[in-house]
Amino acid sequence: MNPRIDALPTSADVAAAARRLTGVIVRTPLLYCAALSELTGAKVFVKPETLQRTGSFKFRGAYNRLVQIPLADRPAGVVASSSGNHAQGVAAAARLLGIPAIIAMPDDAPALKRERTEAFGAAVVGFDRRTQHGEDIAGALAAERGATLVPPYDDTEVIAGQGTVGLEILDDLSELGLVPQVVAAAAGGGGLVAGIALAAQSRAPGLRVVACEPEGFDDHARSFRSGVRERNVSLVGSFCDALLAPHPGAMTFEITRTLVGEAAVADDAEVSRAVTFAFRELKLVVEPGGAVPLACLLEGRIPIAPGSVVVVVLSGGNVDTETFIRCLTA
Amino acid sequence: MNPRIDALPTSADVAAAARRLTGVIVRTPLLYCAALSELTGAKVFVKPETLQRTGSFKFRGAYNRLVQIPLADRPAGVVASSSGNHAQGVAAAARLLGIPAIIAMPDDAPALKRERTEAFGAAVVGFDRRTQHGEDIAGALAAERGATLVPPYDDTEVIAGQGTVGLEILDDLSELGLVPQVVAAAAGGGGLVAGIALAAQSRAPGLRVVACEPEGFDDHARSFRSGVRERNVSLVGSFCDALLAPHPGAMTFEITRTLVGEAAVADDAEVSRAVTFAFRELKLVVEPGGAVPLACLLEGRIPIAPGSVVVVVLSGGNVDTETFIRCLTA
Repeated sequence: MNPRIDALPTSADVAAAARRLTGVIVRTPLLYCAALSELTGAKVFVKPETLQRTGSFKFRGAYNRLVQIPLADRPAGVVASSSGNHAQGVAAAARLLGIPAIIAMPDDAPALKRERTEAFGAAVVGFDRRTQHGEDIAGALAAERGATLVPPYDDTEVIAGQGTVGLEILDDLSELGLVPQVVAAAAGGGGLVAGIALAAQSRAPGLRVVACEPEGFDDHARSFRSGVRERNVSLVGSFCDALLAPHPGAMTFEITRTLVGEAAVADDAEVSRAVTFAFRELKLVVEPGGAVPLACLLEGRIPIAPGSVVVVVLSGGNVDTETFIRCLTA
Repeated sequence: MNPRIDALPTSADVAAAARRLTGVIVRTPLLYCAALSELTGAKVFVKPETLQRTGSFKFRGAYNRLVQIPLADRPAGVVASSSGNHAQGVAAAARLLGIPAIIAMPDDAPALKRERTEAFGAAVVGFDRRTQHGEDIAGALAAERGATLVPPYDDTEVIAGQGTVGLEILDDLSELGLVPQVVAAAAGGGGLVAGIALAAQSRAPGLRVVACEPEGFDDHARSFRSGVRERNVSLVGSFCDALLAPHPGAMTFEITRTLVGEAAVADDAEVSRAVTFAFRELKLVVEPGGAVPLACLLEGRIPIAPGSVVVVVLSGGNVDTETFIRCLTA
């Protein structure tokens, strides 16, 4: 179960992932946002991974991992633990590749995420997030069946897959003759920010990748300050269900401590306003966890020089109707 | 006020519009939709003009018209009549070009649309849609001030601008080695379907463009059958506020009678379900009028051969919170 710290992904792994994902993922657009640009004085673009297959960026890493499972190992299946976006990513990739999938999912995960995971044909095993560890359950299930465990972030190929978000951002900006100064993205275990930072390492060396976290789950912020992986005090208490990892990943932190190193925080009320902003101004359905970077930008938590090029990643859109309505009417 | 039937736009006008709009509009993506493809047995893509500047395709035609107003005429301003999407398109284009704008808008237009039109700096003049004609009011305002009238659809440059939606669809599919068999788009006055049909005339001669209308406002369907422009019986009675034109445009019908000729209808309950489908499955905020083609597809109103390439245009996303919640909870 220990991550292979010796096998940290590189920007070459991200490029290889991009080749594997071409024609399978939705090549999500990079959208210039006039409203955000006016508000901030920067050139602001959004990268809506909400429009990705399964409604979040997680499909990228999952498919990049699963497509590399040897044919002989596929019948034994894959196992993952996730509150719902990695779950859907693994389930959808497994179905495309004809691999059986079992997902350990906390009982308090949004109903929509569980329904959609099951709709992709995966078996879902529930657990109580306060007393049980999803990764332990997934590890046991995988060992029992000889199945392949697909970690949500501490995996070379998963991180490389998520990094393709960064490559696409760089490619699209490059066509406009632009280089980004800031990319803000959500951080739970840190796979997305680690992948983006790797993608940008050689192509945009001055880029600031900002890890955006819900209040009370600022483990990246604290870990960047202390230099070691810090734990969150509680595992419950935010509706940003996608971002409630207990601490930064071991592999991801090895990458983010040097290549990211910057974080920002927003509380649930601010995230709720960002979800509403996305509804009104961007016409995009964004789930709370996916709206944290937008909230950080709107609340002025990310220092930005006038005229700089800023990208906000909207990482997922799998939100229950009730939660969405609560945001719109708050 | 009579449309210049002698000046019908051509596919060359659409190509010229595309050049004028490059770098000004959002180049909206063409998104492959796995969920819709599975449901229909076709290869279904959506074209989310919801992500366009101002939240609807109307910015294209408005900007293409306004940017061609001679500098000497600009200080006198522009005038338009619209329930809100053409209004925002004209207001936003006017602001970009430094032209004053006055918009005649019905009193029952969605509050969001009025607010957003005013936020772009336009002056809004309200009127009662049951007793007054917006185009008469706009015409009088324009005459009084020597301002340029910007018709919502019966204008060569407006139609040409909307047609760039079609060009982008053809370009993006062409990159995938595909040619569309069906493009479904909403029809109020018919500017969008006319423009798309013009764009496809030479490049995809077998393409079926389907004009999608709300029940009770099936003036295109009836006009295609009778061969003359038919009126809608009522001007109220659907929440698809963007599509309540009294009859097909004179210019647009000259184009659509030969190049479109096919229509489909959905009622408000079906449109409401389509808005919810877009929320859950596409993660896109679509207004009722913009969801009519999706409703027609979901309800099986558009005959589709298995495996064919189908594009659904989601033409706008300017929906009030209350209306959106009503759709999600219906």
